[in-house]
Amino acid sequence: MREPLYLRLYRQLRGEIESGRLAPGTRLPSIRQMTHDLTVSRTTVETAYEHLCADGIVQCIPQSGYYVNDLPQRRPAHADPAPEARPQPCRYDFSGQRMDPELFDFAIWRKLSRAVMMDSDPFLGYGETQGERALREQIARYLSAGRGVYTTAEHVVIGAGIQSLLGILCEIFDKDSQRIAFEDPGFRKGFRVFADHGYDTVFISGGASGINLDALRQSKANMLYISPSHSFPSGASLTHRKRMQLLEWAQQNGAVIFEDDYDGELRYIGKPLATLSAMDSGGNVIYLGAFSKLLPPSIRISYAVLPSRLLPLYRAIAPHYNQTSSTMEQLTMARFIEEGRLEKQVRRLRRLYAHKNARIAEAFAEHFGARATVRPNDTGLHVIVSLAGRGDAEQMCAQARQAGVRIVPMSSYQLGNRRTQAAVFYLSSAGIAEEDIEPAVAQLRTVWQ
Amino acid sequence: MREPLYLRLYRQLRGEIESGRLAPGTRLPSIRQMTHDLTVSRTTVETAYEHLCADGIVQCIPQSGYYVNDLPQRRPAHADPAPEARPQPCRYDFSGQRMDPELFDFAIWRKLSRAVMMDSDPFLGYGETQGERALREQIARYLSAGRGVYTTAEHVVIGAGIQSLLGILCEIFDKDSQRIAFEDPGFRKGFRVFADHGYDTVFISGGASGINLDALRQSKANMLYISPSHSFPSGASLTHRKRMQLLEWAQQNGAVIFEDDYDGELRYIGKPLATLSAMDSGGNVIYLGAFSKLLPPSIRISYAVLPSRLLPLYRAIAPHYNQTSSTMEQLTMARFIEEGRLEKQVRRLRRLYAHKNARIAEAFAEHFGARATVRPNDTGLHVIVSLAGRGDAEQMCAQARQAGVRIVPMSSYQLGNRRTQAAVFYLSSAGIAEEDIEPAVAQLRTVWQ
Repeated sequence: MREPLYLRLYRQLRGEIESGRLAPGTRLPSIRQMTHDLTVSRTTVETAYEHLCADGIVQCIPQSGYYVNDLPQRRPAHADPAPEARPQPCRYDFSGQRMDPELFDFAIWRKLSRAVMMDSDPFLGYGETQGERALREQIARYLSAGRGVYTTAEHVVIGAGIQSLLGILCEIFDKDSQRIAFEDPGFRKGFRVFADHGYDTVFISGGASGINLDALRQSKANMLYISPSHSFPSGASLTHRKRMQLLEWAQQNGAVIFEDDYDGELRYIGKPLATLSAMDSGGNVIYLGAFSKLLPPSIRISYAVLPSRLLPLYRAIAPHYNQTSSTMEQLTMARFIEEGRLEKQVRRLRRLYAHKNARIAEAFAEHFGARATVRPNDTGLHVIVSLAGRGDAEQMCAQARQAGVRIVPMSSYQLGNRRTQAAVFYLSSAGIAEEDIEPAVAQLRTVWQ
Repeated sequence: MREPLYLRLYRQLRGEIESGRLAPGTRLPSIRQMTHDLTVSRTTVETAYEHLCADGIVQCIPQSGYYVNDLPQRRPAHADPAPEARPQPCRYDFSGQRMDPELFDFAIWRKLSRAVMMDSDPFLGYGETQGERALREQIARYLSAGRGVYTTAEHVVIGAGIQSLLGILCEIFDKDSQRIAFEDPGFRKGFRVFADHGYDTVFISGGASGINLDALRQSKANMLYISPSHSFPSGASLTHRKRMQLLEWAQQNGAVIFEDDYDGELRYIGKPLATLSAMDSGGNVIYLGAFSKLLPPSIRISYAVLPSRLLPLYRAIAPHYNQTSSTMEQLTMARFIEEGRLEKQVRRLRRLYAHKNARIAEAFAEHFGARATVRPNDTGLHVIVSLAGRGDAEQMCAQARQAGVRIVPMSSYQLGNRRTQAAVFYLSSAGIAEEDIEPAVAQLRTVWQ
């Protein structure tokens, strides 16, 4: 992504003003002059100048021109803006933070959202607190058909991202008597919300077969946050037996399990396993899902499915929180599911990810040989790569970043303080084009050799 | 809003199954038969049946038909869905929860969002954590030009609603050493977030001239949440002198002021007063704004402007939280401001609200005579109506609701436990058409006489 022209011009001018090369009182070249000198469009220059005015460092005097201001007086509280860390685009992206444009037919989304917007009525209010009914119905249908989670719209709660949902769900329990266990490595941003809301938290390390049940029992936790469709660090799905044991633990302890199934439907090895929620007969499981791995993640829609026994608790506090998810996106999503496009997309992604993951494995075999161990996780969204004889994964990722490859160390999923720096990486194929995989891995070899 | 046909059919069938009138094992009429019997479309029947299947109470056996299931086995955790409180549309709405369609040219919004969506690139990622740069630049420009808040994009943080923003801002301070004061009556949903995040909160009653400074000093609070453009319960703007005193208090106590200016630009009596943020030279004020009173509130965009000294604290925690506001709406909003449409909309609303508020005053004078005292608040968004010789405002509002008028008692803005039930109401003219005002107030007289 190139930086827009106006922005480059704006930065350049601002730099010259802030460094003093353009002194207060100086008149900037006229828009016409600048347009001519730089052979850029009038709009480019105008926009750059307007930004300087908005910053308060340049002033427009009508009929005269643009003048550099005295800085300190105009911007007292904001005299020294800190540098801003902005995400930089990257040539090869294995982070999963962006979706390869080939994976999503944006034209369809555009068409559906246009259709939805033809009726302005649904947009005039704050939107339903629990989420738009039309979407909740579609999600209930989708889950019943695809994930064995038989539910109804009444049980579905929508929010702009899992964090928004967790923030509300945190408040339906009596925090002072809760202790929540997290898989470690695990979902940091989820852990963060519980910590912010004053929960007592505890980390449980996972073994090869997923979460350590003895450690869970000993932790005295009465809540658990878990992603059963891929356990850290192995990437394997929890077995049916282990799922039963977790539900037993919940039943015996009156515990609540947050089942984060954000990528469960992408499982491509065998059939998707029954979710904890589907197996739960005690009303102990809150099911959490999201569309951020199926659709471009800028579409901010996640959902929770509450068991009946927790519904009254949710209803009691729901009016205190405004809905965060855009009504427009919710209604577009409802149509997207209604037309069967979500199911189609899931099938398509499963196929494409399996394919890309195989390419990643091939590329590492080619460039790193026996030093690399590549293991796809069961949901197919990630590939776990270990490199023998190397350490300091974070430094290696920083080097890769410099060379245009974004790659995430397994350690970035660690919740506790101890950081293992083994060279284990968690690669997503969501954001990288198939033909880029081999050159990206070749690049990694160059950097890491 | 009528309930869709399929939903009525679905409910009816579900009722019959749950009551046992349709026993387990019963075959439902074929879709074709039902379509014919009810003279509805095939889709209607199909959708109703699919919902019953999704609920797990009906099963589709291919080549045979739809059969009623044995209930308990299929839906263990969801056997008894609690009734859901859904917002019911209302003939006359003074609540301000919806916007009168006349107040917003939705066609323009539609056009801009279409244009924005032509380029899919910005939608492929999670969106910028701090909010889309393009929108932050426009907000900075808008605030510099219109609210005297000279700032830059670096200082602006965007979220889907004030609550989302506050949830993050709560985490930049050391909670254990903070006590935050709220005006009472005040903004309940804001208070709620601080309470959820474990803050020590205290309520300060407002007098005729706004917040009681002595009470604030005695409270030992080192934070304050306030809406200076309309103090509760009077509706008056804080005077310049009082604003200076608040800033002095903040400076002396190293305190932080959250200035909620969500409707500041709508002020229609005289010129808008300088915001606390504009007057602040100590970096003690966090400015909060929203578009929910200027545009239809389903567009979920709010923003905070941080003083430079707090920016590093924000930056340190920002990566832990995903952006909640839709990228699509953010970029559409950026265009909306860029094209000068926001400023136009503010001017238009100011004029229309002044007009409608006058109509409300006339209607109350006509129907309630001297018993009614009507006082517009300074920002023009609300009108405060007191009725002499009446009590129990909440009950009166419930009666009005029954008769098709939604009206909010002042007591619903009270934060503390004590509830005064004086007949004082807080009417918004945002959601009611001008020609509906007189009939609505006439209806109130009928109900309350």
